[in-house]
Amino acid sequence: MENVRVVPTRRHPIVYANWLHAQRRPTILIYGHYDVQPAEPFSEWRTPPFEPVVRDSNVYGRGACDDKGQLFTHVKALESYLKTERSLPVNVKCIFEGEEEVGGSVGLEKFVLRNRNALGADAAVMSDTRMLGPGRPAIGYSQRGNLRFELEVRGPKEDLHSGNFGGVIHNPLQALCEIVAGMHYSEGRVAIPGFYDNVRQWSAKEREYMARTGPKDDEILHDAHVPQAWGEPGFSLYERITIRPALTLNGIRGGYGGAGIKTVIPSRALAKISIRIVPDQKPREIDKLLREYIRRAAPPTVEANLRALAVSHPALVNRNHPALRAAAVAYRRGFGAAPVFLRSGGSVPAASIFQKTLGIPTVLMGFALPDDHVHAPNEKFHLPNFFRGIETSIWYLAAAAKLRDSQRQPEPEEEWSA
Amino acid sequence: MENVRVVPTRRHPIVYANWLHAQRRPTILIYGHYDVQPAEPFSEWRTPPFEPVVRDSNVYGRGACDDKGQLFTHVKALESYLKTERSLPVNVKCIFEGEEEVGGSVGLEKFVLRNRNALGADAAVMSDTRMLGPGRPAIGYSQRGNLRFELEVRGPKEDLHSGNFGGVIHNPLQALCEIVAGMHYSEGRVAIPGFYDNVRQWSAKEREYMARTGPKDDEILHDAHVPQAWGEPGFSLYERITIRPALTLNGIRGGYGGAGIKTVIPSRALAKISIRIVPDQKPREIDKLLREYIRRAAPPTVEANLRALAVSHPALVNRNHPALRAAAVAYRRGFGAAPVFLRSGGSVPAASIFQKTLGIPTVLMGFALPDDHVHAPNEKFHLPNFFRGIETSIWYLAAAAKLRDSQRQPEPEEEWSA
Repeated sequence: MENVRVVPTRRHPIVYANWLHAQRRPTILIYGHYDVQPAEPFSEWRTPPFEPVVRDSNVYGRGACDDKGQLFTHVKALESYLKTERSLPVNVKCIFEGEEEVGGSVGLEKFVLRNRNALGADAAVMSDTRMLGPGRPAIGYSQRGNLRFELEVRGPKEDLHSGNFGGVIHNPLQALCEIVAGMHYSEGRVAIPGFYDNVRQWSAKEREYMARTGPKDDEILHDAHVPQAWGEPGFSLYERITIRPALTLNGIRGGYGGAGIKTVIPSRALAKISIRIVPDQKPREIDKLLREYIRRAAPPTVEANLRALAVSHPALVNRNHPALRAAAVAYRRGFGAAPVFLRSGGSVPAASIFQKTLGIPTVLMGFALPDDHVHAPNEKFHLPNFFRGIETSIWYLAAAAKLRDSQRQPEPEEEWSA
Repeated sequence: MENVRVVPTRRHPIVYANWLHAQRRPTILIYGHYDVQPAEPFSEWRTPPFEPVVRDSNVYGRGACDDKGQLFTHVKALESYLKTERSLPVNVKCIFEGEEEVGGSVGLEKFVLRNRNALGADAAVMSDTRMLGPGRPAIGYSQRGNLRFELEVRGPKEDLHSGNFGGVIHNPLQALCEIVAGMHYSEGRVAIPGFYDNVRQWSAKEREYMARTGPKDDEILHDAHVPQAWGEPGFSLYERITIRPALTLNGIRGGYGGAGIKTVIPSRALAKISIRIVPDQKPREIDKLLREYIRRAAPPTVEANLRALAVSHPALVNRNHPALRAAAVAYRRGFGAAPVFLRSGGSVPAASIFQKTLGIPTVLMGFALPDDHVHAPNEKFHLPNFFRGIETSIWYLAAAAKLRDSQRQPEPEEEWSA
């Protein structure tokens, strides 16, 4: 690779490199992220999170799968070409960032906007999503967006003795629970007024396709190791995690949490909340609805403060796009199996950034297994998938060489206009 | 002092000592506790919690006031007598324990039960409560009991990615908030069915006495540094924290609480809850009502588990008892002001243990100020109160010498029968 650069951002730098000697051939943008989720709770890791350990055909460690390991498949594919052929079948631009988990890829968005001409490409590819199961590859074509918030409720200036003041002071931790509990109806729908107003209704045909190709309810429950489902009535579990939005309480801290009990009324409490949004919900509008809800739900006896931490938009790719068809060819060779086209519940901001800024589709070529413990303790990457991933990436670069002729076909359905 | 012993218990030892040479004189039990509340959050202490610092007539440190400092006033009073008179005006038995904050004085209760004959006395005295304000001494005659619980809600076996599973899994942290939020009505009453059934109704005369002598609403709010009250309608703030029960959420831990956001559905969530009970609520009955509430409130999609951590009973002393009258005399000499008789919202298990096991009243002779930050960061003890406390204890031992003749008078009101 050439022009290798470490580009500073306000937080973590972007690593850029390119190889542009495939004249008259298409250009592929390879994306990955090297930052990871926090490793807490440390006590639940069987081996230390930042010391990679190979056990039973898996490599264990924070980031093994999300996304260092998957990113590395493409690096090894490029290395294979350059060591054997001394050239690549397409032009390649690599962007590896460090702000995906950390909060909405803010530095990436600025970098891409500033360099939109230099970054021009025919398609992007990334490996940061999952397969349906071992030997069952999948190409992503839809991701939810993600709005991340911090809700702080403040009461007394300092912690108070619950004996001396219990019964006359509104406990901010209790108020927080009341506010948060009111965000869902008991049957599983989000109770924030207006929340579903702009959620896109999908055609019977699309839902039928999803039902045929996507994971079944029992598979999703099995992957989660949970006996019983929950959530919005009227939709399959696959639909609930892909074409329906969700509000998740990611954490609460308030008062005493150590051994035994400390009899305090805490002075403040904090909740971490993320909202997965879908087309055609707009981040600004959801932010506003949440603020209105909190304003009405927060009692006058406490002070509630909502901070928006990060935003990513939903991403949607036409699954008939030639860049995705090329990926299907590559999977058949790399994994020996035809992939299904899958929606994903997660959010990789890069896909929507590339779509909006560069006008190109992103191929979500995931090699993670449902039980790889992504974001959780004991994260792993299945080594056979690592090797098949390298092969699939090699085949993808080969298949992408024929991309330019066929790519300019119109978007077939109104559904893809987002 | 003589017969000094460190008596082991299952947790922290009891320190015992006596002096029994005042023939035909009464015997006074002096109680204190040397254990303290956890010092967290450390970052809010202006000086380290376990390095005592004197600043502006106060000594700062965890336990400065509750209860090492107040306990020490009695030790200094005994020392004063023994160094000057070489004797005490009464027989004295000291019991200093280490399980008051830690959980219901379990070791103390066993010790007192086992040694009920050896510990026989005419009255107990302890300094572990507060005054109305500087120069406004108070003698406690009523304390709430305290039941402490831990509520754990479990969901998925491990933390899950909120993108992949947000919308189909019942989040145990959200379920915890829903369960906890349902424990109060919005106007401030506890919503657990049957919770108030056995709460004693006090006579108009007693409530009138409380209104005349107790802190006013605005004083309590001022002490709490809170602009607005909250809680059970129909009662003054002083009544709400003394003759009415309260349920307080002392802490919640669940999911991620660090910087930024970790997009997980946590596998479990934990709440710490304490319930201040009053006559004639019985701990066992309140425990049962809480369990029934949780059983009904917990959805079938999660597993909720309540653990009882510690129990203390309410304590009530006839404020006309000669032992309390003697304390009033001592206060007038020590502080130069007549004390009021005050109910307290907190709970010192020892008072109810001495009442039930030894059949003696406990004089709650508190030297703490409302702004001493008891249980909170920057706990302090006002040094002038320390010195006046020593004097008051000296005068109390003198006044108690005349106790035996006058003490066997009957309980005057049905209200004191608890």
